[in-house]
Amino acid sequence: MPPGSAPSFPIDSAPHSRARIVDDLPTETLADVGSLRPLGQIKESFIIASGYDGLWIIDQHVAHERILFEKVLHNRQANAPESQRLLMPIIVTLTPEQQVAFDRINDELFAAGFEIEPFGHRTVAVKASPAGLSPSEIETLLHEILETPDRELRELSIDDLQKQVAATIACHAAIKINTPLDPAKMRWLLDELAKTECPMACPHGRPIALKYGLKDILKAFHRI
Amino acid sequence: MPPGSAPSFPIDSAPHSRARIVDDLPTETLADVGSLRPLGQIKESFIIASGYDGLWIIDQHVAHERILFEKVLHNRQANAPESQRLLMPIIVTLTPEQQVAFDRINDELFAAGFEIEPFGHRTVAVKASPAGLSPSEIETLLHEILETPDRELRELSIDDLQKQVAATIACHAAIKINTPLDPAKMRWLLDELAKTECPMACPHGRPIALKYGLKDILKAFHRI
Repeated sequence: MPPGSAPSFPIDSAPHSRARIVDDLPTETLADVGSLRPLGQIKESFIIASGYDGLWIIDQHVAHERILFEKVLHNRQANAPESQRLLMPIIVTLTPEQQVAFDRINDELFAAGFEIEPFGHRTVAVKASPAGLSPSEIETLLHEILETPDRELRELSIDDLQKQVAATIACHAAIKINTPLDPAKMRWLLDELAKTECPMACPHGRPIALKYGLKDILKAFHRI
Repeated sequence: MPPGSAPSFPIDSAPHSRARIVDDLPTETLADVGSLRPLGQIKESFIIASGYDGLWIIDQHVAHERILFEKVLHNRQANAPESQRLLMPIIVTLTPEQQVAFDRINDELFAAGFEIEPFGHRTVAVKASPAGLSPSEIETLLHEILETPDRELRELSIDDLQKQVAATIACHAAIKINTPLDPAKMRWLLDELAKTECPMACPHGRPIALKYGLKDILKAFHRI
Protein backbone atom coordinates (compact mmCIF):
# COMPACT_ATOMS: atom_id res chain seq x y z
CA MET A 1 0.00 0.00 0.00
CA PRO A 2 1.56 3.35 -1.01
CA PRO A 3 2.12 6.09 1.59
CA GLY A 4 -0.88 8.33 2.03
CA SER A 5 -3.47 5.66 1.39
CA ALA A 6 -3.25 4.12 4.85
CA PRO A 7 -6.69 3.50 6.30
CA SER A 8 -7.93 5.70 9.11
CA PHE A 9 -8.31 3.95 12.44
CA PRO A 10 -11.67 2.44 13.31
CA ILE A 11 -13.30 4.97 15.61
CA ASP A 12 -13.80 3.74 19.14
CA SER A 13 -17.51 3.36 18.68
CA ALA A 14 -18.47 0.15 20.45
CA PRO A 15 -20.34 1.13 23.61
CA HIS A 16 -18.91 -0.71 26.56
CA SER A 17 -20.40 1.11 29.52
CA ARG A 18 -21.93 -2.09 30.80
CA ALA A 19 -18.68 -4.04 30.89
CA ARG A 20 -17.24 -4.73 34.32
CA ILE A 21 -15.34 -1.77 35.75
CA VAL A 22 -11.75 -2.78 36.43
CA ASP A 23 -10.03 -1.04 39.31
CA ASP A 24 -7.80 -3.74 40.75
CA LEU A 25 -4.91 -3.68 38.28
CA PRO A 26 -1.29 -3.47 39.41
CA THR A 27 -0.01 0.03 40.11
CA GLU A 28 3.74 -0.64 40.18
CA THR A 29 4.19 1.07 36.82
CA LEU A 30 3.06 4.44 38.18
CA ALA A 31 6.61 5.81 38.45
CA ASP A 32 7.44 4.54 34.95
CA VAL A 33 4.61 6.49 33.34
CA GLY A 34 5.70 9.64 35.18
CA SER A 35 9.18 9.42 33.67
CA LEU A 36 8.02 9.30 30.06
CA ARG A 37 9.06 11.89 27.46
CA PRO A 38 6.61 12.18 24.55
CA LEU A 39 8.24 12.01 21.10
CA GLY A 40 5.16 12.33 18.90
CA GLN A 41 2.06 10.51 17.69
CA ILE A 42 1.47 7.81 15.15
CA LYS A 43 -1.74 7.98 13.14
CA GLU A 44 -2.77 10.91 15.37
CA SER A 45 -4.01 8.24 17.79
CA PHE A 46 -1.12 6.80 19.76
CA ILE A 47 1.48 8.77 21.70
CA ILE A 48 5.02 7.46 21.34
CA ALA A 49 7.13 8.13 24.40
CA SER A 50 10.63 7.41 25.54
CA GLY A 51 11.14 5.98 29.03
CA TYR A 52 14.29 5.08 30.92
CA ASP A 53 13.42 1.42 30.36
CA GLY A 54 12.29 1.45 26.75
CA LEU A 55 9.78 2.69 24.22
CA TRP A 56 6.14 3.24 25.18
CA ILE A 57 3.00 3.50 23.07
CA ILE A 58 0.00 5.14 24.74
CA ASP A 59 -3.56 5.01 23.41
CA GLN A 60 -4.56 8.66 23.81
CA HIS A 61 -8.29 7.98 24.08
CA VAL A 62 -8.17 5.36 26.82
CA ALA A 63 -5.46 7.29 28.68
CA HIS A 64 -7.71 10.34 28.86
CA GLU A 65 -10.67 8.09 29.71
CA ARG A 66 -8.81 6.81 32.78
CA ILE A 67 -7.91 10.37 33.88
CA LEU A 68 -11.51 11.59 33.51
CA PHE A 69 -13.01 8.47 35.11
CA GLU A 70 -11.04 8.98 38.31
CA LYS A 71 -11.77 12.73 38.33
CA VAL A 72 -15.52 12.35 37.76
CA LEU A 73 -15.76 9.58 40.36
CA HIS A 74 -13.75 11.54 42.91
CA ASN A 75 -15.90 14.65 42.44
CA ARG A 76 -19.06 12.53 42.67
CA GLN A 77 -17.94 10.96 45.92
CA ALA A 78 -17.12 14.40 47.30
CA ASN A 79 -20.58 15.59 46.17
CA ALA A 80 -18.88 18.27 44.06
CA PRO A 81 -19.50 17.41 40.41
CA GLU A 82 -18.21 19.82 37.77
CA SER A 83 -21.26 20.80 35.76
CA GLN A 84 -21.83 23.01 32.73
CA ARG A 85 -25.15 24.70 31.87
CA LEU A 86 -26.19 24.25 28.25
CA LEU A 87 -27.09 27.29 26.15
CA MET A 88 -30.20 25.45 24.92
CA PRO A 89 -31.69 22.41 26.67
CA ILE A 90 -31.23 19.20 24.70
CA ILE A 91 -34.49 17.30 24.23
CA VAL A 92 -34.09 13.52 24.32
CA THR A 93 -36.81 10.99 23.54
CA LEU A 94 -36.73 7.78 25.57
CA THR A 95 -38.05 4.26 24.98
CA PRO A 96 -40.40 2.88 27.68
CA GLU A 97 -37.45 0.87 29.10
CA GLN A 98 -35.16 3.90 29.09
CA GLN A 99 -37.91 5.91 30.85
CA VAL A 100 -37.99 3.29 33.64
CA ALA A 101 -34.20 3.40 33.95
CA PHE A 102 -34.25 7.21 33.94
CA ASP A 103 -36.75 7.37 36.80
CA ARG A 104 -34.56 4.97 38.77
CA ILE A 105 -31.19 6.71 38.31
CA ASN A 106 -31.98 10.39 37.71
CA ASP A 107 -30.80 11.24 41.24
CA GLU A 108 -27.44 9.61 40.46
CA LEU A 109 -27.20 11.47 37.14
CA PHE A 110 -27.87 14.72 39.03
CA ALA A 111 -25.13 13.86 41.52
CA ALA A 112 -22.75 13.32 38.59
CA GLY A 113 -23.43 16.79 37.13
CA PHE A 114 -26.51 16.33 34.94
CA GLU A 115 -29.65 18.38 35.30
CA ILE A 116 -32.44 16.58 33.47
CA GLU A 117 -36.15 17.36 33.74
CA PRO A 118 -39.24 15.55 32.40
CA PHE A 119 -40.48 17.24 29.23
CA GLY A 120 -43.77 15.63 28.29
CA HIS A 121 -44.49 12.02 27.34
CA ARG A 122 -41.27 9.89 27.37
CA THR A 123 -39.21 12.95 26.70
CA VAL A 124 -36.63 14.71 28.90
CA ALA A 125 -34.82 18.04 28.69
CA VAL A 126 -31.12 18.10 29.57
CA LYS A 127 -30.30 21.55 30.99
CA ALA A 128 -26.82 20.88 32.35
CA SER A 129 -24.20 18.19 31.88
CA PRO A 130 -20.86 17.15 33.42
CA ALA A 131 -18.08 19.56 32.39
CA GLY A 132 -16.05 18.61 29.33
CA LEU A 133 -18.85 16.81 27.52
CA SER A 134 -19.61 18.10 24.07
CA PRO A 135 -23.38 18.77 23.65
CA SER A 136 -23.29 16.55 20.56
CA GLU A 137 -22.34 13.57 22.76
CA ILE A 138 -25.09 14.01 25.34
CA GLU A 139 -27.97 12.20 23.62
CA THR A 140 -25.83 9.14 22.74
CA LEU A 141 -24.36 9.06 26.23
CA LEU A 142 -27.77 9.24 27.90
CA HIS A 143 -29.18 6.46 25.74
CA GLU A 144 -26.11 4.36 26.53
CA ILE A 145 -26.48 4.75 30.29
CA LEU A 146 -30.24 4.20 30.18
CA GLU A 147 -29.88 1.03 28.08
CA THR A 148 -29.06 -0.92 31.25
CA PRO A 149 -32.00 -3.30 31.81
CA ASP A 150 -34.08 -2.60 34.93
CA ARG A 151 -33.33 -6.06 36.33
CA GLU A 152 -29.61 -5.29 36.15
CA LEU A 153 -30.07 -1.80 37.61
CA ARG A 154 -31.90 -3.20 40.64
CA GLU A 155 -28.97 -5.56 41.33
CA LEU A 156 -26.33 -2.83 40.98
CA SER A 157 -24.78 -1.42 44.17
CA ILE A 158 -24.66 2.38 44.55
CA ASP A 159 -20.90 2.09 44.25
CA ASP A 160 -21.08 0.19 40.96
CA LEU A 161 -23.70 2.56 39.57
CA GLN A 162 -21.49 5.55 40.39
CA LYS A 163 -18.57 3.89 38.59
CA GLN A 164 -20.69 2.96 35.60
CA VAL A 165 -21.97 6.53 35.19
CA ALA A 166 -18.45 7.94 35.65
CA ALA A 167 -17.01 5.50 33.08
CA THR A 168 -19.64 6.40 30.49
CA ILE A 169 -19.09 10.14 31.00
CA ALA A 170 -15.30 9.64 30.78
CA CYS A 171 -15.57 7.63 27.57
CA HIS A 172 -17.65 10.29 25.85
CA ALA A 173 -15.65 13.29 27.10
CA ALA A 174 -12.19 11.83 26.39
CA ILE A 175 -9.95 12.93 23.50
CA LYS A 176 -10.79 10.82 20.47
CA ILE A 177 -8.32 8.90 18.36
CA ASN A 178 -7.49 10.46 14.95
CA THR A 179 -6.88 13.75 16.78
CA PRO A 180 -3.57 15.61 16.45
CA LEU A 181 -2.02 16.61 19.79
CA ASP A 182 0.71 19.21 20.24
CA PRO A 183 3.73 18.41 22.47
CA ALA A 184 2.29 20.35 25.44
CA LYS A 185 -0.97 18.41 25.29
CA MET A 186 0.89 15.09 25.10
CA ARG A 187 3.05 16.13 28.07
CA TRP A 188 -0.09 17.10 30.03
CA LEU A 189 -1.80 13.80 29.23
CA LEU A 190 1.17 11.71 30.40
CA ASP A 191 1.56 13.81 33.56
CA GLU A 192 -2.13 13.47 34.42
CA LEU A 193 -2.04 9.76 33.64
CA ALA A 194 0.88 9.29 36.03
CA LYS A 195 -1.24 10.84 38.80
CA THR A 196 -4.05 8.30 38.39
CA GLU A 197 -4.40 5.32 40.68
CA CYS A 198 -4.36 2.88 37.78
CA PRO A 199 -2.50 4.27 34.74
CA MET A 200 -2.22 1.02 32.82
CA ALA A 201 -5.85 0.21 31.98
CA CYS A 202 -9.05 2.09 31.19
CA PRO A 203 -12.09 1.63 33.48
CA HIS A 204 -13.19 -1.31 31.32
CA GLY A 205 -9.84 -3.05 31.44
CA ARG A 206 -8.52 -2.10 28.02
CA PRO A 207 -4.76 -1.49 28.01
CA ILE A 208 -3.64 2.16 28.04
CA ALA A 209 0.06 1.60 27.41
CA LEU A 210 2.34 -0.87 25.66
CA LYS A 211 6.02 -1.03 26.46
CA TYR A 212 8.84 -2.28 24.23
CA GLY A 213 11.53 -2.88 26.83
CA LEU A 214 15.11 -1.80 26.27
CA LYS A 215 16.43 -5.35 26.69
CA ASP A 216 14.06 -6.65 24.04
CA ILE A 217 15.09 -3.87 21.65
CA LEU A 218 18.77 -4.64 22.22
CA LYS A 219 18.14 -8.34 21.66
CA ALA A 220 16.21 -7.70 18.45
CA PHE A 221 19.16 -5.67 17.14
CA HIS A 222 21.60 -8.46 18.18
CA ARG A 223 23.25 -6.03 20.61
CA ILE A 224 23.03 -8.39 23.60
CA MET B 1 15.44 1.60 38.80
CA PRO B 2 14.83 5.37 39.13
CA PRO B 3 14.93 7.58 36.03
CA GLY B 4 18.42 8.82 35.25
CA SER B 5 20.23 5.75 36.46
CA ALA B 6 19.51 3.67 33.37
CA PRO B 7 22.62 1.92 32.14
CA SER B 8 24.31 3.22 29.02
CA PHE B 9 24.18 0.89 26.05
CA PRO B 10 27.05 -1.51 25.49
CA ILE B 11 29.18 0.16 22.85
CA ASP B 12 29.29 -1.65 19.56
CA SER B 13 32.79 -2.95 20.16
CA ALA B 14 32.81 -6.50 18.88
CA PRO B 15 34.80 -6.52 15.64
CA HIS B 16 32.89 -8.35 12.97
CA SER B 17 34.77 -7.45 9.83
CA ARG B 18 35.38 -11.10 9.08
CA ALA B 19 31.76 -12.15 9.23
CA ARG B 20 30.12 -12.94 5.92
CA ILE B 21 28.98 -9.85 4.03
CA VAL B 22 25.26 -10.01 3.44
CA ASP B 23 23.95 -8.38 0.30
CA ASP B 24 21.13 -10.63 -0.77
CA LEU B 25 18.39 -9.49 1.61
CA PRO B 26 14.92 -8.55 0.37
CA THR B 27 14.53 -4.98 -0.84
CA GLU B 28 10.75 -4.72 -0.94
CA THR B 29 10.78 -2.49 2.16
CA LEU B 30 12.66 0.27 0.34
CA ALA B 31 9.56 2.40 -0.20
CA ASP B 32 8.55 1.93 3.43
CA VAL B 33 11.81 3.35 4.76
CA GLY B 34 11.48 6.35 2.44
CA SER B 35 8.09 7.23 3.92
CA LEU B 36 9.29 7.37 7.53
CA ARG B 37 8.96 10.51 9.67
CA PRO B 38 11.48 10.62 12.54
CA LEU B 39 9.92 11.38 15.95
CA GLY B 40 13.02 11.26 18.12
CA GLN B 41 15.60 8.96 19.68
CA ILE B 42 15.55 6.60 22.59
CA LYS B 43 18.73 6.26 24.59
CA GLU B 44 20.41 8.48 21.98
CA SER B 45 20.91 5.26 20.00
CA PHE B 46 17.71 4.30 18.22
CA ILE B 47 15.65 6.53 15.96
CA ILE B 48 11.92 6.20 16.47
CA ALA B 49 9.96 6.91 13.30
CA SER B 50 6.37 6.90 12.23
CA GLY B 51 5.47 5.14 8.98
CA TYR B 52 2.16 4.76 7.19
CA ASP B 53 2.11 1.14 8.31
CA GLY B 54 3.28 1.41 11.90
CA LEU B 55 6.05 2.37 14.26
CA TRP B 56 9.70 1.85 13.29
CA ILE B 57 12.84 1.65 15.39
CA ILE B 58 16.12 2.22 13.55
CA ASP B 59 19.57 1.42 14.94
CA GLN B 60 21.43 4.61 14.01
CA HIS B 61 24.86 2.99 13.91
CA VAL B 62 24.04 0.09 11.60
CA ALA B 63 21.85 2.33 9.41
CA HIS B 64 24.79 4.66 8.83
CA GLU B 65 27.07 1.64 8.37
CA ARG B 66 24.88 0.41 5.49
CA ILE B 67 24.88 3.88 3.87
CA LEU B 68 28.67 4.20 4.10
CA PHE B 69 29.31 0.61 3.03
CA GLU B 70 27.47 1.09 -0.25
CA LYS B 71 29.10 4.50 -0.82
CA VAL B 72 32.66 3.30 -0.15
CA LEU B 73 32.16 0.18 -2.28
CA HIS B 74 30.62 2.18 -5.12
CA ASN B 75 33.51 4.69 -5.09
CA ARG B 76 36.03 1.84 -4.94
CA GLN B 77 34.49 0.12 -7.93
CA ALA B 78 34.53 3.41 -9.83
CA ASN B 79 38.19 3.85 -8.83
CA ALA B 80 37.28 7.14 -7.18
CA PRO B 81 37.72 6.71 -3.43
CA GLU B 82 37.13 9.75 -1.21
CA SER B 83 40.36 10.21 0.67
CA GLN B 84 41.53 12.63 3.35
CA ARG B 85 45.16 13.56 3.99
CA LEU B 86 46.12 13.41 7.68
CA LEU B 87 47.78 16.42 9.34
CA MET B 88 50.37 14.09 10.86
CA PRO B 89 51.02 10.52 9.65
CA ILE B 90 49.80 7.88 12.08
CA ILE B 91 52.46 5.30 12.89
CA VAL B 92 51.14 1.78 13.37
CA THR B 93 53.14 -1.20 14.58
CA LEU B 94 52.22 -4.58 13.08
CA THR B 95 52.61 -8.17 14.22
CA PRO B 96 54.46 -10.50 11.81
CA GLU B 97 51.09 -11.90 10.66
CA GLN B 98 49.65 -8.40 10.14
CA GLN B 99 52.77 -7.46 8.16
CA VAL B 100 52.14 -10.41 5.80
CA ALA B 101 48.51 -9.40 5.39
CA PHE B 102 49.52 -5.75 4.83
CA ASP B 103 51.94 -6.68 2.03
CA ARG B 104 49.19 -8.72 0.39
CA ILE B 105 46.35 -6.13 0.51
CA ASN B 106 48.08 -2.72 0.56
CA ASP B 107 47.09 -2.15 -3.07
CA GLU B 108 43.45 -2.74 -2.15
CA LEU B 109 43.76 -0.40 0.85
CA PHE B 110 45.15 2.26 -1.49
CA ALA B 111 42.26 1.74 -3.89
CA ALA B 112 39.88 2.26 -0.95
CA GLY B 113 41.42 5.63 -0.02
CA PHE B 114 44.33 4.73 2.28
CA GLU B 115 47.87 5.89 1.69
CA ILE B 116 50.15 3.73 3.82
CA GLU B 117 53.94 3.49 3.53
CA PRO B 118 56.49 1.20 5.17
CA PHE B 119 58.14 2.97 8.09
CA GLY B 120 60.94 0.73 9.32
CA HIS B 121 60.73 -2.75 10.83
CA ARG B 122 57.10 -3.96 11.05
CA THR B 123 55.88 -0.40 11.21
CA VAL B 124 53.82 1.58 8.71
CA ALA B 125 52.92 5.25 8.38
CA VAL B 126 49.34 6.11 7.41
CA LYS B 127 49.38 9.39 5.47
CA ALA B 128 45.83 9.44 4.15
CA SER B 129 42.62 7.57 4.97
CA PRO B 130 39.11 7.19 3.53
CA ALA B 131 37.03 10.35 4.12
CA GLY B 132 34.89 10.41 7.24
CA LEU B 133 37.18 8.26 9.36
CA SER B 134 38.29 9.85 12.61
CA PRO B 135 42.12 9.58 12.99
CA SER B 136 41.52 7.96 16.39
CA GLU B 137 39.83 5.02 14.65
CA ILE B 138 42.56 4.37 12.09
CA GLU B 139 44.89 2.19 14.12
CA THR B 140 42.10 -0.09 15.40
CA LEU B 141 40.60 -0.33 11.93
CA LEU B 142 43.90 -1.25 10.35
CA HIS B 143 44.60 -3.92 12.94
CA GLU B 144 41.11 -5.28 12.41
CA ILE B 145 41.48 -5.59 8.62
CA LEU B 146 44.97 -7.05 8.90
CA GLU B 147 43.84 -9.67 11.46
CA THR B 148 42.49 -11.82 8.61
CA PRO B 149 44.75 -14.93 8.48
CA ASP B 150 46.85 -15.23 5.35
CA ARG B 151 45.24 -18.56 4.47
CA GLU B 152 41.85 -16.86 4.44
CA LEU B 153 43.13 -13.86 2.47
CA ARG B 154 44.50 -16.11 -0.25
CA GLU B 155 41.08 -17.74 -0.66
CA LEU B 156 39.22 -14.43 -0.78
CA SER B 157 38.03 -13.17 -4.18
CA ILE B 158 38.86 -9.57 -5.13
CA ASP B 159 35.16 -8.83 -4.88
CA ASP B 160 34.91 -10.22 -1.34
CA LEU B 161 38.07 -8.40 -0.26
CA GLN B 162 36.67 -5.10 -1.57
CA LYS B 163 33.46 -5.69 0.38
CA GLN B 164 35.34 -6.65 3.54
CA VAL B 165 37.47 -3.51 3.43
CA ALA B 166 34.41 -1.34 2.68
CA ALA B 167 32.47 -2.92 5.56
CA THR B 168 35.29 -2.33 8.03
CA ILE B 169 35.68 1.30 6.95
CA ALA B 170 31.90 1.81 7.16
CA CYS B 171 31.71 0.31 10.64
CA HIS B 172 34.42 2.61 11.99
CA ALA B 173 33.21 5.76 10.24
CA ALA B 174 29.52 5.35 11.11
CA ILE B 175 27.72 7.40 13.76
CA LYS B 176 28.06 5.65 17.10
CA ILE B 177 25.22 4.74 19.42
CA ASN B 178 24.88 6.94 22.54
CA THR B 179 25.08 9.96 20.22
CA PRO B 180 22.34 12.63 20.21
CA LEU B 181 21.02 13.45 16.72
CA ASP B 182 19.00 16.55 15.84
CA PRO B 183 15.85 16.18 13.69
CA ALA B 184 17.68 17.25 10.49
CA LYS B 185 20.36 14.59 11.00
CA MET B 186 17.72 11.91 11.65
CA ARG B 187 15.84 12.99 8.52
CA TRP B 188 19.08 12.83 6.51
CA LEU B 189 19.93 9.38 7.82
CA LEU B 190 16.51 7.94 6.93
CA ASP B 191 16.59 9.56 3.48
CA GLU B 192 20.05 8.17 2.75
CA LEU B 193 19.06 4.77 4.08
CA ALA B 194 16.07 4.69 1.75
CA LYS B 195 18.43 5.23 -1.19
CA THR B 196 20.53 2.16 -0.35
CA GLU B 197 20.08 -1.10 -2.16
CA CYS B 198 19.49 -3.01 1.05
CA PRO B 199 18.11 -0.75 3.82
CA MET B 200 17.06 -3.51 6.21
CA ALA B 201 20.39 -5.06 7.25
CA CYS B 202 23.97 -3.92 7.79
CA PRO B 203 26.73 -5.45 5.63
CA HIS B 204 27.14 -8.21 8.25
CA GLY B 205 23.45 -9.07 8.34
CA ARG B 206 22.48 -7.31 11.57
CA PRO B 207 19.00 -5.79 11.41
CA ILE B 208 18.83 -2.03 10.82
CA ALA B 209 15.14 -1.55 11.46
CA LEU B 210 12.37 -3.09 13.52
CA LYS B 211 8.75 -2.45 12.68
CA TYR B 212 5.75 -2.61 15.02
CA GLY B 213 2.93 -2.93 12.50
CA LEU B 214 -0.26 -0.91 12.83
CA LYS B 215 -2.41 -4.04 12.92
CA ASP B 216 -0.39 -5.47 15.80
CA ILE B 217 -0.66 -2.19 17.71
CA LEU B 218 -4.43 -2.09 17.18
CA LYS B 219 -4.71 -5.71 18.31
CA ALA B 220 -2.63 -5.09 21.43
CA PHE B 221 -4.96 -2.21 22.35
CA HIS B 222 -8.03 -4.44 21.71
CA ARG B 223 -9.09 -2.08 18.91
CA ILE B 224 -9.50 -4.84 16.29
